[in-house]
Amino acid sequence: MTDHVVEALPGIFRLIDLVGVLLNGVLGGIIARRKRFDLVGFAILAITSALGGGMLRDIMLQAGPPVALTDPLYLATALLGAVVAFLLPLGGRWWTRLYVVGDALVLGCWAATGATKALSEGLGLLPAVLLGVMTAVGGGMIRDVVVGDVPTIFGGNTLYATSAVFASLAAIGLADVGQNTVGMLVAIIVGAGLSIAARWRGWRLPDA
Amino acid sequence: MTDHVVEALPGIFRLIDLVGVLLNGVLGGIIARRKRFDLVGFAILAITSALGGGMLRDIMLQAGPPVALTDPLYLATALLGAVVAFLLPLGGRWWTRLYVVGDALVLGCWAATGATKALSEGLGLLPAVLLGVMTAVGGGMIRDVVVGDVPTIFGGNTLYATSAVFASLAAIGLADVGQNTVGMLVAIIVGAGLSIAARWRGWRLPDA
Amino acid sequence: MTDHVVEALPGIFRLIDLVGVLLNGVLGGIIARRKRFDLVGFAILAITSALGGGMLRDIMLQAGPPVALTDPLYLATALLGAVVAFLLPLGGRWWTRLYVVGDALVLGCWAATGATKALSEGLGLLPAVLLGVMTAVGGGMIRDVVVGDVPTIFGGNTLYATSAVFASLAAIGLADVGQNTVGMLVAIIVGAGLSIAARWRGWRLPDA
Repeated sequence: MTDHVVEALPGIFRLIDLVGVLLNGVLGGIIARRKRFDLVGFAILAITSALGGGMLRDIMLQAGPPVALTDPLYLATALLGAVVAFLLPLGGRWWTRLYVVGDALVLGCWAATGATKALSEGLGLLPAVLLGVMTAVGGGMIRDVVVGDVPTIFGGNTLYATSAVFASLAAIGLADVGQNTVGMLVAIIVGAGLSIAARWRGWRLPDA
Repeated sequence: MTDHVVEALPGIFRLIDLVGVLLNGVLGGIIARRKRFDLVGFAILAITSALGGGMLRDIMLQAGPPVALTDPLYLATALLGAVVAFLLPLGGRWWTRLYVVGDALVLGCWAATGATKALSEGLGLLPAVLLGVMTAVGGGMIRDVVVGDVPTIFGGNTLYATSAVFASLAAIGLADVGQNTVGMLVAIIVGAGLSIAARWRGWRLPDA
Repeated sequence: MTDHVVEALPGIFRLIDLVGVLLNGVLGGIIARRKRFDLVGFAILAITSALGGGMLRDIMLQAGPPVALTDPLYLATALLGAVVAFLLPLGGRWWTRLYVVGDALVLGCWAATGATKALSEGLGLLPAVLLGVMTAVGGGMIRDVVVGDVPTIFGGNTLYATSAVFASLAAIGLADVGQNTVGMLVAIIVGAGLSIAARWRGWRLPDA
């Protein structure tokens, strides 16, 4: 890669991260609308969907308050998603396409963030993969439980958590040789590629 | 205010706090009775209802074990609530009136505690409001999820979390000018006034 | 006791601990099969069942990341349980007998671990009992909530959490006189004895 591209990457990762927060905030709001909740419900489901995974990771790592609370943009962006979902009747075909692509991109980004943060706190391979997956899928899982649904990642979906496992492994492998930035890029490509391919081809994990 | 009143305020706040723990412990027990749980269920629902919000706040803040575990009176008071609810068939009109007034008072007290604790740990305005609201309504929310109900604060109630938002904002504004004690007092008045007025007049948030 | 037995005890406790992780990992997998989840669901339910209680305890104690993440054997053993449950159609009479005995042994072991860890972090008697019980029954409780069931420990079972209360008290009493190893042994005997006797005789707590 040319130097210019490499220099631009951290900014691009930050953008993908915040777009992920916004899209998952909107998704929380859409679910709040479907359940006929009021503005408080919109706000709580937006925060849970968008930031719950990272909160769970940071609570586990015990290295200070969750980034979701210390980075001033996170809460504001998640709440913006709630407001957007409150004002606009999203949820149709165009929203779904936008969400699927955006969420696929952020899946690997969040998995890589969680996995490498776990490594830098001194945890081993298996816990790092767990925290990578938790960062990527934890928010949706908590949201599903809170509204009384069985989490979709438990079965019947198309390789969602599995994509996060492979993205985490890619990030861990490249962080291990000191290539964190490249690792993040590869994790995003692996996560997005695998989750979109699985959705397109209908790939599923076996059940027992 | 006269000096005597100002000196008495911290003791009064402590009393409101513990009355809140007791009343919400009883409420947890009443729900345990309705669900036909045994003594263990009474105890867990009392602890969750009465102390869950503060536990969630302290887990997020990561400044040591939750006050619910380090202050010797909290757990004992919550369990006393469970025992009261186990022995007495509460839940009638007089209980409801007592609970509504007591819970309205504690709403602002807990919101102010959570919001100012978040500020003193260095968090910003939005996270402080979130932790204020979480302290006030988090216990009931966790309890509802744990027994398989959709949390009532998500919709259909009368400005419960909204009152906690305004109480948090009042406490934050006055803490910002160094008036923590006055801030707590104003938060209690705002929280109780707004939540009782909303219940009395049937005010609700719009849904989408 | 002879010196040889005393020297062997820590190794035996470690074995009981890991057998408990394995059995509860398998149990999580059996529930995942019953709910028709895929491999991801098996893994998450195994981790939740086997390690959720200790995670909850360590998050409360805030003395570093959960042992479930820092001890390399825990996650691997829980996931091994998931794989076993995925490959073998367990759940029949022999499995139930094995699980009941194994889980009864680990109940007191986990309660003692949680209670004494709470004491060593400076907490009092009541919080120590709470964290002992939480370590023993918290994983099953979280798993039940996550899959949308009302936790069985809330009622209708046979003194499960109650056995953990008495095992915690035994461990606390003996830790108080400096006998941690004997305390763990007595806690295991008390927990296993009471929970198996209760199951055999159908003992239950009163409901209200």
